Amino acid sequence: MQALGRHLLCEYHGCDRELLNRPADIRRELVAAVTLAGATPLHEVVHAFSPHGVTGVVVIAESHFAIHTWPEHGFAAVDLFTCGATVDPYAAFEHLRSALRAETHSVVEIRRGLFPGAVPHKP
Amino acid sequence: MQALGRHLLCEYHGCDRELLNRPADIRRELVAAVTLAGATPLHEVVHAFSPHGVTGVVVIAESHFAIHTWPEHGFAAVDLFTCGATVDPYAAFEHLRSALRAETHSVVEIRRGLFPGAVPHKP
Repeated sequence: MQALGRHLLCEYHGCDRELLNRPADIRRELVAAVTLAGATPLHEVVHAFSPHGVTGVVVIAESHFAIHTWPEHGFAAVDLFTCGATVDPYAAFEHLRSALRAETHSVVEIRRGLFPGAVPHKP
Repeated sequence: MQALGRHLLCEYHGCDRELLNRPADIRRELVAAVTLAGATPLHEVVHAFSPHGVTGVVVIAESHFAIHTWPEHGFAAVDLFTCGATVDPYAAFEHLRSALRAETHSVVEIRRGLFPGAVPHKP
């Protein structure tokens, strides 16, 4: 049974709180995660909230990566949704874990679009 | 135990295949879903793939909505990630189910960022 996509739901706790509130840093690390995963970036959106919190989304040829940060909790929720066999979302997961300086983390992998004999492609 | 966010992972099967391949329609229905959920749209990205497939993301003040379509399978994977108590992601789920003319669907709700006593806010 093949899935059209795989989706990592990542949670990072005990992160660098100042970094989580700097949109330029969040953008840089998210884009680096895309590169390390071997994905193809198409569009980026980064939004800084007042007084704190950053949202970043990169639409990739293979689906999307997203991050939402709660600096006041040292917490970031990350989604790494990919399709195709050429990308490695765990490379992105590892990069963000390190870059955000997370003390602890969790990651759940969910297979999206389960079809008998389906062939993953873009997107 | 309070969660900072809630995340609906929705899968729609047996959708209108032509509609799934029309980026203008996907944009319209995703934006309508944002409105019906009571969320605040901040940025939109819609990307059409060749020969088929559309990705749409709306960054909202309460996190993000995303859709990836596989017209050739009549399938769409949707993420409705919200925070705060003022939005109703199930209104978005229901709207998209109807708008995409899904024959069947599944939805899983995941609580993101579980903290004792955390108060959800934007984002």
